[in-house]
Amino acid sequence: MEGMHLVSREYKPEDTVVTVGEVRIGGGHRAYIAGPCSVEDEGQIMEIARLIQGRAHILRGGAFKPRTSPYSFQGLGEEGLRLLVQAGRAFGLPVVTEVLSEEEVERVAEQVDMLQIGARNMQNYALLKKVGAQKKPVLLKRGLAATIEELLLAAEYILAAGNPQVVLCERGIRTFSGSLTRNTLDLSAVPILKQLTHLPVIVDPSHGTGRWNLVEPLAKAALAVGADGVMIEVHTHPQEALSDGPQSLKPERFRALAAELDALAEFLDGRSRGGANG
Amino acid sequence: MEGMHLVSREYKPEDTVVTVGEVRIGGGHRAYIAGPCSVEDEGQIMEIARLIQGRAHILRGGAFKPRTSPYSFQGLGEEGLRLLVQAGRAFGLPVVTEVLSEEEVERVAEQVDMLQIGARNMQNYALLKKVGAQKKPVLLKRGLAATIEELLLAAEYILAAGNPQVVLCERGIRTFSGSLTRNTLDLSAVPILKQLTHLPVIVDPSHGTGRWNLVEPLAKAALAVGADGVMIEVHTHPQEALSDGPQSLKPERFRALAAELDALAEFLDGRSRGGANG
Amino acid sequence: MEGMHLVSREYKPEDTVVTVGEVRIGGGHRAYIAGPCSVEDEGQIMEIARLIQGRAHILRGGAFKPRTSPYSFQGLGEEGLRLLVQAGRAFGLPVVTEVLSEEEVERVAEQVDMLQIGARNMQNYALLKKVGAQKKPVLLKRGLAATIEELLLAAEYILAAGNPQVVLCERGIRTFSGSLTRNTLDLSAVPILKQLTHLPVIVDPSHGTGRWNLVEPLAKAALAVGADGVMIEVHTHPQEALSDGPQSLKPERFRALAAELDALAEFLDGRSRGGANG
Amino acid sequence: MEGMHLVSREYKPEDTVVTVGEVRIGGGHRAYIAGPCSVEDEGQIMEIARLIQGRAHILRGGAFKPRTSPYSFQGLGEEGLRLLVQAGRAFGLPVVTEVLSEEEVERVAEQVDMLQIGARNMQNYALLKKVGAQKKPVLLKRGLAATIEELLLAAEYILAAGNPQVVLCERGIRTFSGSLTRNTLDLSAVPILKQLTHLPVIVDPSHGTGRWNLVEPLAKAALAVGADGVMIEVHTHPQEALSDGPQSLKPERFRALAAELDALAEFLDGRSRGGANG
Repeated sequence: MEGMHLVSREYKPEDTVVTVGEVRIGGGHRAYIAGPCSVEDEGQIMEIARLIQGRAHILRGGAFKPRTSPYSFQGLGEEGLRLLVQAGRAFGLPVVTEVLSEEEVERVAEQVDMLQIGARNMQNYALLKKVGAQKKPVLLKRGLAATIEELLLAAEYILAAGNPQVVLCERGIRTFSGSLTRNTLDLSAVPILKQLTHLPVIVDPSHGTGRWNLVEPLAKAALAVGADGVMIEVHTHPQEALSDGPQSLKPERFRALAAELDALAEFLDGRSRGGANG
Repeated sequence: MEGMHLVSREYKPEDTVVTVGEVRIGGGHRAYIAGPCSVEDEGQIMEIARLIQGRAHILRGGAFKPRTSPYSFQGLGEEGLRLLVQAGRAFGLPVVTEVLSEEEVERVAEQVDMLQIGARNMQNYALLKKVGAQKKPVLLKRGLAATIEELLLAAEYILAAGNPQVVLCERGIRTFSGSLTRNTLDLSAVPILKQLTHLPVIVDPSHGTGRWNLVEPLAKAALAVGADGVMIEVHTHPQEALSDGPQSLKPERFRALAAELDALAEFLDGRSRGGANG
Repeated sequence: MEGMHLVSREYKPEDTVVTVGEVRIGGGHRAYIAGPCSVEDEGQIMEIARLIQGRAHILRGGAFKPRTSPYSFQGLGEEGLRLLVQAGRAFGLPVVTEVLSEEEVERVAEQVDMLQIGARNMQNYALLKKVGAQKKPVLLKRGLAATIEELLLAAEYILAAGNPQVVLCERGIRTFSGSLTRNTLDLSAVPILKQLTHLPVIVDPSHGTGRWNLVEPLAKAALAVGADGVMIEVHTHPQEALSDGPQSLKPERFRALAAELDALAEFLDGRSRGGANG
Repeated sequence: MEGMHLVSREYKPEDTVVTVGEVRIGGGHRAYIAGPCSVEDEGQIMEIARLIQGRAHILRGGAFKPRTSPYSFQGLGEEGLRLLVQAGRAFGLPVVTEVLSEEEVERVAEQVDMLQIGARNMQNYALLKKVGAQKKPVLLKRGLAATIEELLLAAEYILAAGNPQVVLCERGIRTFSGSLTRNTLDLSAVPILKQLTHLPVIVDPSHGTGRWNLVEPLAKAALAVGADGVMIEVHTHPQEALSDGPQSLKPERFRALAAELDALAEFLDGRSRGGANG
């Protein structure tokens, strides 16, 4: 990455604070994004939103789902979007959802508070340019095999298109790791990114591990390593979820984790320090 | 990959033969696709087409280029497309070019003989569905970190959308391999794919290695391992190419390689055999 | 990993506490192992030991060094071992050093408090059996491309040979990560290992990242994710170190980090909880 | 790899020819090494040697087996060694077997014609130095996560210790590849190695893929890409083999493959060419 880039600390030394609804991320503000992988029906998303409010800052939920097989559940589409927005309003939570197609970006951007670019589309440049032309903040997930530099240059596409409101998300990389975890969560990416860019960085330990019982320790580690927040999948009935059940926390467990993270964040803020080696 | 899929040998035991212009790929027909990474100007693409005709079967050339940085050369766009088509017609070569955006698919499909989906977009499902709705054959490149199964399911999206004319392309995967090669060409993918699917499979040793002096041995190995063709980057002045110069062959070198591949193919066809272990 | 193994939680549900000199690791006891990559001369190791005592629990220092090239500095050998032991005694720190050769195991085991098996030798079964026959505890580092299961089975070799005192160490795995870090530190391995085995698990953020300015955030993350300690390279003059300078902390910086880790550990111990999902 | 190394083409431009018994490898001489993963009993090894003689040039068979679990079959040891040597003598085949322990190197070197260093021990420097001090040629397998440079520097340890007779072996690297293959065979390593070193390079498609029905296409690709030979596991009853059954060919199938490889080698020798790009 040669030359001066809009995403770089050289270009803009101070932390960018991204605002989603009234929630701030970055510059010392941490946010917890939570919700189901997919919006499944009205009861499901309303119930989850109700149970996580007060602990979560932003509600997530997939309406358009990128699925490896064309025959897997592809999300409720427009209807899912409508239900997500309704649940967010009902419980005072701004909402984020993924966009998959250039053609749906504008319509989705009118309704939600934040647009997500998924890992598979991190280098879908047509889509990056499209979200770069919107006024809504963007959550950009790192690709499965993307280097730190490639993630930053993907964000550069969005900033160069005119949208400075980008949050980066580490969500696990593909390694030889095998059957015990879905991916390898690369927490070292967080401090490296914080050194190179002014953009906020969050961590998704749900996709990063694929196992609900690893979410808690890795969410804590994410804050300890310097992340500006976490994104966590929550479902009332994980074993019946239409997607990603094995990595979803139940709402009460999410609430307990959020309380732990609050305490950890308070501890970390009380002790922050830095400086050169020596 | 559970259940019966359109791409599977179970669904269709006999080899699919994909027809590009009048060129056949698959079912014993091998094709060499050659040309520059990017169409740079009229003189360049006409010269290259002239020098490879008779040895190459299909002319490649990028008009819309996916580039890691938004500040790298992004291709000539519509003008590049026009020049590519003109060069193909002038020398009797069908042409293939990459599409990056849903919005350009139809317009490009009207002009070229084959649409390419690049590695970065292998799981861009909106784009896959769009090319699946066209009448032109599709060259689908394997993603950098895509498993064999994911490649097949990406092809399934295209077939399920109504387009049975898909050629798969192994082009190197991302490993720890480091500085000596750009990627690791996974030639074992070829016989595995040929066992699982009836679709033709070709190999791109240019992107697969990133070094021109590895293209020749790996192109031969590709045929030996059972590929239905190769895709090779050719440039008259590799050191001045606007993209991918280090992995491009000069035209005369490509011609010599194509002659070698013809001889090897003839040898292999004379000796084919198979059967169970023992 | 089928069947009952000595390393498994099924075989022994309660945490194993490994004792190195008078230092305990595991079962709620955390240890910080610190010192130079290589013992270079008497002044160096004595100075480092003096500066880290009181904050470090165990002194590390390489006498026999595994180096990729036969022409790199291979360590001081027997003399290095003597200097390490002398420094440990002078400042009341038990010592750990790596063994490379079956032939040196017994002699080294007589002198040091803990034997280290390096990442390159994790599947050197002759060496594992040899350290398994000693009375001294063993620090077993995960191989660069070893799965969790392979690490556990390597430990099983040591336990099966009669030595139950094994500490596991996550130290980074080899991925596509490229030039920004030496390896990818896999912190998810810690909670997975803690679920599967009763053995203590520590983390080496120095080798895991290869960059001193990533050591602090990843050491904190290691404790947050549940590690029983950390191993950190310390050097008084990193830029002149004969090996691994770029990833070494200066002693004062190590002391400050250790104080931070103490505070974090105290915080974490005050809040531990667990249980099933929901 | 800076500076002049004994393994480099700069140091020694002409191909090294390694002699095993009376079999030559390198400098235009290709060799097929075949035999069972493990020597299991007298009948097995004698039968296999009998069935492959005339087609195989060197007999392989493991007596000391490196196994991930301490409870897996570890080989017959000294008895296996005796049976292997007996079978080789009975059918006029030189033999190669793996050494795992420094302590057994001299004793094994007295009996066999070639010593193998397995992938797990590629960076076991004590063992490399020991085989470097013997008079017998060494077959050095690439480690699962070893770069080309690391493989060359491991060979450098052997040459620097006084033994110039080293054959390198590509046998698959560990990637994200998943369940369809055991490893990813990196055939691009062959031409890269041939450019950098004068040592012979062979390929092991049995370990490289882990599946018998991929051995044949990848063995052919290995010759096409420039390898000086192949190493192939052969077993009379693969489904009953004590190790590596799924990747073993039956003897008749090996014989047919060897005939194919002979024909391919003859074809390739008749057409060799080279030169600069342009």
